[in-house]
Amino acid sequence: MTYELGENRYGKSRIRLVTVRRGPDRHDLRDMTVAVALEGDFDAVHTSGDNANVIATDTMKNTVYAFARDRLTGSAEVFGLELARHFASYPVCSRAIVDLVEHPWRRVKTRDGEAPDAFVRSGQHSRLASVTVDRSGGTDVVAGIDDLTVMKTTKSAFTGFDRDRYTTLPEVDDRLMATKVRATWGYRSDMATAADFDFDGVWKRTTQALMESLAAHFSRSVQESIWIMGTAMMDAEPSIEWVRMVLPNLHHWKVDLAPFGLDNPAEVFVSTREPHGLIDATVRRRAAG
Amino acid sequence: MTYELGENRYGKSRIRLVTVRRGPDRHDLRDMTVAVALEGDFDAVHTSGDNANVIATDTMKNTVYAFARDRLTGSAEVFGLELARHFASYPVCSRAIVDLVEHPWRRVKTRDGEAPDAFVRSGQHSRLASVTVDRSGGTDVVAGIDDLTVMKTTKSAFTGFDRDRYTTLPEVDDRLMATKVRATWGYRSDMATAADFDFDGVWKRTTQALMESLAAHFSRSVQESIWIMGTAMMDAEPSIEWVRMVLPNLHHWKVDLAPFGLDNPAEVFVSTREPHGLIDATVRRRAAG
Amino acid sequence: MTYELGENRYGKSRIRLVTVRRGPDRHDLRDMTVAVALEGDFDAVHTSGDNANVIATDTMKNTVYAFARDRLTGSAEVFGLELARHFASYPVCSRAIVDLVEHPWRRVKTRDGEAPDAFVRSGQHSRLASVTVDRSGGTDVVAGIDDLTVMKTTKSAFTGFDRDRYTTLPEVDDRLMATKVRATWGYRSDMATAADFDFDGVWKRTTQALMESLAAHFSRSVQESIWIMGTAMMDAEPSIEWVRMVLPNLHHWKVDLAPFGLDNPAEVFVSTREPHGLIDATVRRRAAG
Amino acid sequence: MTYELGENRYGKSRIRLVTVRRGPDRHDLRDMTVAVALEGDFDAVHTSGDNANVIATDTMKNTVYAFARDRLTGSAEVFGLELARHFASYPVCSRAIVDLVEHPWRRVKTRDGEAPDAFVRSGQHSRLASVTVDRSGGTDVVAGIDDLTVMKTTKSAFTGFDRDRYTTLPEVDDRLMATKVRATWGYRSDMATAADFDFDGVWKRTTQALMESLAAHFSRSVQESIWIMGTAMMDAEPSIEWVRMVLPNLHHWKVDLAPFGLDNPAEVFVSTREPHGLIDATVRRRAAG
Repeated sequence: MTYELGENRYGKSRIRLVTVRRGPDRHDLRDMTVAVALEGDFDAVHTSGDNANVIATDTMKNTVYAFARDRLTGSAEVFGLELARHFASYPVCSRAIVDLVEHPWRRVKTRDGEAPDAFVRSGQHSRLASVTVDRSGGTDVVAGIDDLTVMKTTKSAFTGFDRDRYTTLPEVDDRLMATKVRATWGYRSDMATAADFDFDGVWKRTTQALMESLAAHFSRSVQESIWIMGTAMMDAEPSIEWVRMVLPNLHHWKVDLAPFGLDNPAEVFVSTREPHGLIDATVRRRAAG
Repeated sequence: MTYELGENRYGKSRIRLVTVRRGPDRHDLRDMTVAVALEGDFDAVHTSGDNANVIATDTMKNTVYAFARDRLTGSAEVFGLELARHFASYPVCSRAIVDLVEHPWRRVKTRDGEAPDAFVRSGQHSRLASVTVDRSGGTDVVAGIDDLTVMKTTKSAFTGFDRDRYTTLPEVDDRLMATKVRATWGYRSDMATAADFDFDGVWKRTTQALMESLAAHFSRSVQESIWIMGTAMMDAEPSIEWVRMVLPNLHHWKVDLAPFGLDNPAEVFVSTREPHGLIDATVRRRAAG
Repeated sequence: MTYELGENRYGKSRIRLVTVRRGPDRHDLRDMTVAVALEGDFDAVHTSGDNANVIATDTMKNTVYAFARDRLTGSAEVFGLELARHFASYPVCSRAIVDLVEHPWRRVKTRDGEAPDAFVRSGQHSRLASVTVDRSGGTDVVAGIDDLTVMKTTKSAFTGFDRDRYTTLPEVDDRLMATKVRATWGYRSDMATAADFDFDGVWKRTTQALMESLAAHFSRSVQESIWIMGTAMMDAEPSIEWVRMVLPNLHHWKVDLAPFGLDNPAEVFVSTREPHGLIDATVRRRAAG
Repeated sequence: MTYELGENRYGKSRIRLVTVRRGPDRHDLRDMTVAVALEGDFDAVHTSGDNANVIATDTMKNTVYAFARDRLTGSAEVFGLELARHFASYPVCSRAIVDLVEHPWRRVKTRDGEAPDAFVRSGQHSRLASVTVDRSGGTDVVAGIDDLTVMKTTKSAFTGFDRDRYTTLPEVDDRLMATKVRATWGYRSDMATAADFDFDGVWKRTTQALMESLAAHFSRSVQESIWIMGTAMMDAEPSIEWVRMVLPNLHHWKVDLAPFGLDNPAEVFVSTREPHGLIDATVRRRAAG
């Protein structure tokens, strides 16, 4: 044959799952979007239309809902581990990848305290979890946060960069820095697969370290910000091996008010979305040696 | 001539405005999307290409940024009043409409308290303000909230509805009710144009009344929920003359887990976006008499 | 009671309907998004949770699919008429509104001609139809086109407009004019309710008149363009009583290449989406008299 | 140091470029969204805030517009090659990646033929080109098509798949297959870097082969469809080394009309977007040997 199958995977995306746990005093609400993908021995599916080895993506969806009945009792990561191990146990599979996006809700606050059964979608951000299990049991757990829109109104500069014939950008020692954070981080496999690993606690402390660092540091570039925030996150959590951030630089341009007889001491800005800078970097622990 | 000009308006939309007020101890951040629209004597513009009466939409944009320099010191509504009165003062204008969508940010919380110069976009919802001023000075101020996603996990039923040959929906006395609230309300003009009207305070109390009511009431339909929540908002704030809500009914379907040997006591749901119910109703004070 | 119900309507939105007619030689594909809304005597639903008069939005959805089985044989407008008349026949209803958005597909072109059973989504635009039927049988039929993105690369100017202290825009006698057309038009009721009214033919001729006019005319403003194109559409089709267009002015800014030692004779532009002008105008036949 | 920099790249995204070439008889319109990304020796930027090696993303944007002045005369790929070679020539860069999305427009058709200066955005799909040049001159050129929504109304089945306790999907020997195609393909470097390589001609023939194959083949799974269409594309074009497709399976569910006393011989469907299957596979030429 002239052709061969290269890299391939398939699965079900956008499985929208909401669970309500109905305790005696109050309800607990979870809201996730789940995606399942499988890799394995799928050559015959592609090349000869032989579906014997195909786990239907509809079956994947059913499995997610069935597992949600009594196995979604802890963190998104633990639920992902259950699912990924299940899918990796199909003999045809070499690798199962389960991606979970958890959408945060909080209880409505009333004058009598928190409502037991009324909720409001809180925040634009979402929590990410991604679990990969391979045929031999090897396991990767990645956590993250997405769509976290933040701004520093000072302590951000951009100077000393290369200038060539196409450079017109002035140097600025005080600018707005705005971005929509997508940060992911990888856990040490031995720790993440331990029965008592506290995924929720680590996630909270890691994102708090991110926010603390965001507020505290002086940024000479978005690149340096990733380094500073990423290392702060690993300082806070020894279980984290690497941090990756993909940060758009959402430019805010100071409006020239001089034509209207007004000054603008960096108070009035145009917020823009395109074009935007895009900075993608991974920071990791240095291997001992 | 065979044809004539009917209703018309024009203006500038999606004016993205960010302001930073740089106090000695901390910065204040505002983030708005503004739209300006004018109605007036624009027949010749359309029918004979005579632009003498046209205020360019670019000029509208400039005006918004110029006014933001020193007149955006209070609520979105007051800023809108300043802008709408300015545009309504052009002789050609019969009516100026300024719509403002304010995007909420909160300070980053650190172990040392709130950051003075680092912010995070909070919530999916936005605050709405719309100000209309006509040639004679007549003024309407409308406030609102948009994109407020909420869910009641009980105290919602839907029974007793009409059944015909196309009806298959079972009656349910306990269901999830999820919606993305868009609520707007109109203020009494005499109160809203008083110099000391507390737009921010009223907005907070009104939306708190909405949330309290959302959590407390038993809903026999989305329509009844609008009535209950709308009247609660007007009970809380005498300055409000009417409340309008446009609520999608974002259906959550209970998953049938029986094929997998599992029960589902209303714990596992599919969250859907289309199709959705859409309920649009206005509740208003009854005229005395 | 202190409060009363004001304007209200409810219904089902985003009903996604695809039909395949399986002829002996080839299939025909239709793709629509339908919304149904009802107005009527719904006071008790809102104020006392009495659902006896409620036609469930789920029933509306079922009705759309059931009617699609054998009544979607002609134009979107005729299907909308069938649906709207059905809903308006409920005694509780004073008015039924059916909005249809038809998404165009075309057959895949192969070397052997058009494929009988393979289709490609053609164009970004969609066809609009909106039918309103009231209790007394009064009927309005509106047609339209949406999301039709067009550009004129010359024969567009903008000069002679008002200048004040906030005006910085230079006059230009040759600019790009780009917009995403949303145009709707209303038919004479007597013609649109005649059994043999050719909705498809009229739609094609009307949109062709729009395109011819778009290409041919010199535009001194977007407002004038609406007048010119709208009157051309009514010239072409006597059944049309009015045309409304809502046109964003999607600005294209000429890039200043002088810093790089290059001229720019209106060849290189930045395409922008925000802010944008927004022009909304209706042109109608002048009443005889 | 405890930490080190891992994989990283940065650049400018969403550079919106429109060009108009003003010939004596007619204008030519191009519309692209360009992204530039660089890899190289950027350790000091991240770890010590030293920006000396940083080519500002604003400079990248300027360069794209400057190059567009007189070097965007042929295909997107050739423009991408010019840009990528320019960026790769910075000593600090080890690799430059230029991604181009070209948005198709066609001339407005009038009764007098094609308009010389009026255009309509045609189709939802876009053309992709991605050029990577590394420090040593190594060059990869990838082309593609995105957002091409297609449907087969027959000649698609899905049977014989694995069944386990979570499987409820019935086997179907005739179903709708709908997807939004994203297909990319890689050219042999020696051919793609030859001065006279006809990127436009190859793109047209490749996408035509895709469409022919789409219409002609019987699909036993989306996986098999990728294999069949991908190999057909390589059969048609010897310059292509591999084809990758990422295809969502946009499910269309046959509506059960039995409750309404109607049959449904696969004529009425609900079109859905979530959840969806997602099939990602690469087909490549087998190495000789």
